[in-house]
Amino acid sequence: MDRERDATFMRRALALAERARGLTSPNPLVGAVVVQGDAVVGEGFHRAAGQAHAEIEALDAAGTRARDATLYVTLEPCAHHGRTPPCAPRVMAAGVRRVVAAMTDPNPLVSGRGLAALREAGVDVTEGVLAGEAARQNRAFVTAMRRGRPHVTLKGAVTLDGRIADAEGASRWITGDAARARAHRLRSESDAIVVGIETVLKDDPRLDVRLDAPWPREPYRVVLDSLARTPVGSRIIAAGTSARAIIAVGERADSARVAALGARGATVVRCPGRDGRVDLAKVLDWLATREVRAVLVEGGGEVHAAFLDAGLVDRVAVFIAPLVLGGRAPALVGGAGRALKDAVRLEAFEITPVGADVLLEADVTSSRPY
Amino acid sequence: MDRERDATFMRRALALAERARGLTSPNPLVGAVVVQGDAVVGEGFHRAAGQAHAEIEALDAAGTRARDATLYVTLEPCAHHGRTPPCAPRVMAAGVRRVVAAMTDPNPLVSGRGLAALREAGVDVTEGVLAGEAARQNRAFVTAMRRGRPHVTLKGAVTLDGRIADAEGASRWITGDAARARAHRLRSESDAIVVGIETVLKDDPRLDVRLDAPWPREPYRVVLDSLARTPVGSRIIAAGTSARAIIAVGERADSARVAALGARGATVVRCPGRDGRVDLAKVLDWLATREVRAVLVEGGGEVHAAFLDAGLVDRVAVFIAPLVLGGRAPALVGGAGRALKDAVRLEAFEITPVGADVLLEADVTSSRPY
Repeated sequence: MDRERDATFMRRALALAERARGLTSPNPLVGAVVVQGDAVVGEGFHRAAGQAHAEIEALDAAGTRARDATLYVTLEPCAHHGRTPPCAPRVMAAGVRRVVAAMTDPNPLVSGRGLAALREAGVDVTEGVLAGEAARQNRAFVTAMRRGRPHVTLKGAVTLDGRIADAEGASRWITGDAARARAHRLRSESDAIVVGIETVLKDDPRLDVRLDAPWPREPYRVVLDSLARTPVGSRIIAAGTSARAIIAVGERADSARVAALGARGATVVRCPGRDGRVDLAKVLDWLATREVRAVLVEGGGEVHAAFLDAGLVDRVAVFIAPLVLGGRAPALVGGAGRALKDAVRLEAFEITPVGADVLLEADVTSSRPY
Repeated sequence: MDRERDATFMRRALALAERARGLTSPNPLVGAVVVQGDAVVGEGFHRAAGQAHAEIEALDAAGTRARDATLYVTLEPCAHHGRTPPCAPRVMAAGVRRVVAAMTDPNPLVSGRGLAALREAGVDVTEGVLAGEAARQNRAFVTAMRRGRPHVTLKGAVTLDGRIADAEGASRWITGDAARARAHRLRSESDAIVVGIETVLKDDPRLDVRLDAPWPREPYRVVLDSLARTPVGSRIIAAGTSARAIIAVGERADSARVAALGARGATVVRCPGRDGRVDLAKVLDWLATREVRAVLVEGGGEVHAAFLDAGLVDRVAVFIAPLVLGGRAPALVGGAGRALKDAVRLEAFEITPVGADVLLEADVTSSRPY
């Protein structure tokens, strides 16, 4: 009964947190509810980095009614100074009697400290209520904290027979309007969007977020471009703040080309890998230093295969269109290929009809680096 | 209000019809409900060819309560002698006042005659209630009647990147137990299962229906085998009644091999097409003469492409597994391939999670023969 009651209020806190989807990075989504008896007396959610944490918003809303109340929060209150002061002392000062947290902070350096501080102060603490939902809600943040690199989602749009373009390379449009709008939402929830140089040369994409409402964030636009072949007039540079166009190059990139790209304002990052190629782990490392949590890879079958073979993919998001192409048209994933017993394994398909298309999303559970 | 009432009883009739899924061919599924006032006084469905029609079962159950009642039936009562006497006279004789039919008989030779006879006899007739649902319920029968050839479904099991096997040809198992059981149900709802000779040579499949409960029907097991290379010891011949193993051969098939297959009891059918190949339309024609309504094609990418390029596919059923293979592994559809603007178009994805896999089914709306 108490479990169910706790779950009900936590579900409300998760729903509040969800309102800021795509707006809080590099911070996680967090929601909070203050409950006095059976009544919700305060609600809050984290709106953006630098703004109040969810529990502070909720405590402010509750005012003196927070005394002896229960605070439900989707993530452990912090005990450390970040962009804002720590929350745990504020929770104690408000006289909260009990704190229910869905999960502890996934950052191994501070995980558990907030709850420990509360316990020491005599607050009754329950953790793990809807922990799975909370972790899924913040999957990018959780991966970034636990693995020390951004969370990577492969995104593609394919025909029912798995083709991302026809044999001539035509791919506009495989999916319908609704799916393309949804793809922009996936971009809006990412901190960086990655493509290969072939996509830049062929499609000259903007890689910006085009939604009906203006979008306050500008994800990094990243090109994997071992030889610095990105044309200086590319839309990827001009489509937004030019410094947020990241050209990741290998050791054989011509320095004159690198200089020309830099002169246009693009950020050229050297990520030397084997055989003159770009080292994907180095690209992710560089992005991590810029507090990038969520990366969306919009390959190319070869780019997708490279990320999978490096063991650097956490999730896939594939739109499937009601079309069949056949023949030798390019597939979602290229590369050398795997034997069935070594296939990349996914789990927990999430299935969403989007217009006439279907969006399949799933987490990668094993992709032995090849 | 009356419309809604009619729809409610028709939905019941459709549910009754559905109980015999896979058992009525070459007849359609039909359900019937007799309603007196607000009360259902008789129900029936067609159980198998040769057995009573649904409306007769329902009228028998209603007995004298059928007088002045309304009869809901998913398909127009027949006015002609088939395996059983015509139903329209029985409906009149029972004193039914009103007949509500979801759809008219799709057979153009008799369509509308049953309802016309009822109208002439003074019965109040309503047609078209849940007509779309009724047509979908009998999609194979409807196609067979309207197009004069069996309804063809392409069935496949693919990884999320569209591969039906790895580069070595390994395909056991891409999907899980639940999907494989569901695939046997698709077989059980078909009158013929078609594969290419390459599948026979590689996998030596049985192509029989393996369900938990014993299954009373035995679909034809068909091999597209232009050169009659099917080994005489193949499981496809031994897995059931050998005469129901159909070897469709082209004009260059060696007569000694044809004779050997015939001696084993298999049925060899000559379907000569261009360049020594098997003419798929002739295969379907031959099956139509055996009253085959529903054909399940379990290709190979080349077999799938051949059916699509001949414009002979009505529906696709694709299981998608949570796996990624990449590389040059074979795809669901091979052949010459199409330009995006000429892609085979599907509509109305039906999405069914099956175990860890997803089943996508859709009707083909245009596949210009190539």
